[in-house]
Amino acid sequence: MVAQDNEMKLMDPEQLSVALIEAQYALKESKGKPNAKSVLILVSGIELAGKGEAVKQLREWVDPRYLRVKADAPQTFNHKQTFWQPYARFIPAEGQVMVMFGNWYSDLLTTAMHVSKPIDETMFDEYIESMRAYEQDLKNNNVDVIKVWFDLSWKSLQKRLDHMDPGEVHWHKLHGLDWRSKKQYDSLQKLRQRFTDDWEIIDCEKEIERDQQFAQHILRTLKHCPDHLKKAKGQWKQAKIPESLLSPSEDVLPKNQYKDELKQLSKKVAEALRFDTRNVVIAFEGMDAAGKGGSIKRIVKKLDPREYEIYTIAAPEPYELRRPYLWRFWNKIQPEEKISIFDRTWYGRVLVERIEGFANAVEWQRAYEEINRFEKDLYDSQTLVIKFWLAISKDEQEARFKAREETPHKRFKITEEDWRNRGRWDDYLKAVADMLQRTDTDYAPWHVISTNDKNTARVQVLEAILKQLKAE
Amino acid sequence: MVAQDNEMKLMDPEQLSVALIEAQYALKESKGKPNAKSVLILVSGIELAGKGEAVKQLREWVDPRYLRVKADAPQTFNHKQTFWQPYARFIPAEGQVMVMFGNWYSDLLTTAMHVSKPIDETMFDEYIESMRAYEQDLKNNNVDVIKVWFDLSWKSLQKRLDHMDPGEVHWHKLHGLDWRSKKQYDSLQKLRQRFTDDWEIIDCEKEIERDQQFAQHILRTLKHCPDHLKKAKGQWKQAKIPESLLSPSEDVLPKNQYKDELKQLSKKVAEALRFDTRNVVIAFEGMDAAGKGGSIKRIVKKLDPREYEIYTIAAPEPYELRRPYLWRFWNKIQPEEKISIFDRTWYGRVLVERIEGFANAVEWQRAYEEINRFEKDLYDSQTLVIKFWLAISKDEQEARFKAREETPHKRFKITEEDWRNRGRWDDYLKAVADMLQRTDTDYAPWHVISTNDKNTARVQVLEAILKQLKAE
Repeated sequence: MVAQDNEMKLMDPEQLSVALIEAQYALKESKGKPNAKSVLILVSGIELAGKGEAVKQLREWVDPRYLRVKADAPQTFNHKQTFWQPYARFIPAEGQVMVMFGNWYSDLLTTAMHVSKPIDETMFDEYIESMRAYEQDLKNNNVDVIKVWFDLSWKSLQKRLDHMDPGEVHWHKLHGLDWRSKKQYDSLQKLRQRFTDDWEIIDCEKEIERDQQFAQHILRTLKHCPDHLKKAKGQWKQAKIPESLLSPSEDVLPKNQYKDELKQLSKKVAEALRFDTRNVVIAFEGMDAAGKGGSIKRIVKKLDPREYEIYTIAAPEPYELRRPYLWRFWNKIQPEEKISIFDRTWYGRVLVERIEGFANAVEWQRAYEEINRFEKDLYDSQTLVIKFWLAISKDEQEARFKAREETPHKRFKITEEDWRNRGRWDDYLKAVADMLQRTDTDYAPWHVISTNDKNTARVQVLEAILKQLKAE
Repeated sequence: MVAQDNEMKLMDPEQLSVALIEAQYALKESKGKPNAKSVLILVSGIELAGKGEAVKQLREWVDPRYLRVKADAPQTFNHKQTFWQPYARFIPAEGQVMVMFGNWYSDLLTTAMHVSKPIDETMFDEYIESMRAYEQDLKNNNVDVIKVWFDLSWKSLQKRLDHMDPGEVHWHKLHGLDWRSKKQYDSLQKLRQRFTDDWEIIDCEKEIERDQQFAQHILRTLKHCPDHLKKAKGQWKQAKIPESLLSPSEDVLPKNQYKDELKQLSKKVAEALRFDTRNVVIAFEGMDAAGKGGSIKRIVKKLDPREYEIYTIAAPEPYELRRPYLWRFWNKIQPEEKISIFDRTWYGRVLVERIEGFANAVEWQRAYEEINRFEKDLYDSQTLVIKFWLAISKDEQEARFKAREETPHKRFKITEEDWRNRGRWDDYLKAVADMLQRTDTDYAPWHVISTNDKNTARVQVLEAILKQLKAE
């Protein structure tokens, strides 16, 4: 909870401006350093309280080149969209400051106030809880989030409406709320009090105090240096490596049977995906040469390329590394995309990044919960997540590597890195075991396909997709 | 015009695959090198011809990790959107290959076939011309564009419809055309013949030939090494430096008069911008300390931050440098943004990039036309572009630099780079003169504000905005 500074002292505007600019430059300089962070400022409040004026004043005090303002009119929730999807693109990179006018809270309020079938208190509070969890994940990933509510009493609001310039009426109306209705005002206040206890509340009776309180709060946030945790607290409890990872089945599916089953299944899968009202995300992980590409090929066999998108995940770009590691996935999964297929996924955080040390212990140990929340948010917004681990034996991998090296159009698939990864086979098994134990949830269960026979794996993948689609 | 290879020879699929993969890797390796390029493949054609199948086969022959497929259902034109806006984000970066199913041509066909008030032949042909000019700009900026039309005779189409799997009907219907109507088929064919003379036309009677012709065409394109022009052809004709740049007015606006005028004008500008049905882009260029920031502040004075977005343009990021230099501006200007204000702009190409040598002579000399086309496309899609050059004298700049250095909250604005730029004052004057001469168009005229008095400049900027808004 943010301490409410009831006795805020006015600073000399010149000094305040210099302090803000210095803090901005320090933030900018932190880029890539251990204490790097970015600042996300969520702004909401009562109409005519003066949010816009305060942000404009802030822009004049700071160096405006390093302050971005994103301002959208609030929108009601779309049931196929998580609350963060419209905004994820604008999460600031290390060193940046972003003010967001339209944000998940204004959307929530708009939804609660406007839709014909409003969301009830339980749902409202569940949203709040998810939003706070999301913000905590942002903070853990070096995005400092602060929230500011611009408040105005009923009486003052009415007075301001009386004196409003006719030229401004147009914009004012855009919001769709009737600010002359005491009932609407009261219910909005009641709703926002369900979430503003960790917000900076600004009483907007007086302009100068309003702008100063806002700017001083930003200044404190800019100056606050996060201590990024480096060391994990307790001992890590390694999961037992399940049998499915250690000894994949050696049974071979006869070729004719495979052909028949594949034909039927790929048709069924295409139809089931096509007619399902939800969006579907299919995620593939597995050792190199485990058959991810081959499985994907069979999923899309009877689909038209316009019906799906395939994402092949490689190492992140520099601009992606300056944001939370899930950021690039937040932005890839789009509400308008019916079927998204991932060849490698966000689980890289707890696999390759853990093993190669790209993520420190605190980071990868925290990631399981972050990933679970991410998948839960997708699930809650009508997006089914179907996850596969393709398990093969170490011998089978070697055989496939060698076969690839001998096949002209496949030898490109084998690089030195693949052989190097193979050297860490046991580390991967441990990481996979932890991953399966900690992220196998009701809403996004793992399918472990454990077989050294490619064709069996493909058939099992298709069957698992059908099963999960039908299960719900 | 692409030569039609009537006697295409089938290649051994294994060899074709290896050749494609090798070409992909060569393309990938070209990144950052003199012959770097990316490849954009636009795909359209008759329903059921097998575009999807051919792309799927291509995906199996190449290394799918380095081929992206973007497939959207065609959409009718939105009159506030340029034809490239929905796709600009997906223009591939150096080293990448992108297949686009939904593209500006499919949108054009859909618009021509579907809307109640269809576009006439003249408009249709004008669109084609703009599209080709846009593609030429892409090519000049290292994006190789190829276009492939998958064709199918009326008879074969009907046969395929007869034998279509009922499960596929759903997708087929999404297209909205009645493929059983000979009239619709014929008018589509007639329309597409207006633009497909520089396309690769694939007759899709036979599957194997279809897939091979497509893949072989891609292979030729991948292998084609562009010769990026380095040297300009003729002598550059330097424009005469206009008086307005050399001797800005010294008249000073009395403070009281300024206050009165500013108050009235900022209100009028806010209202005019707000009630105009078009989107507005306001672009500021000027020497350092010319007053760009101050002018912007006065434009937004009576606006709410939710009504506009301000973009401060700095040096491009590495991922932006791997795309055409206008790319980052294509993506910043959004149809849903009413007012976009730029503090520095795309004119950087013919100013700082020309002067510092970041763009070679061919590149910056070509840029004037590219920029004109860009602004024309915006104009044609209901977006008014208002451009300012703020001219001050060299002495006035020095005075402002010194004043900034003495004002605590302004001294951050002055860096060594500013003094260095000042050293190239005359080079800048020449570049500005060329820019004004070559990009002062009917649809996007320049406003040269030539005064050493800050307040006069601000008033003139506001007046110019009002005038251009009312002129049309």
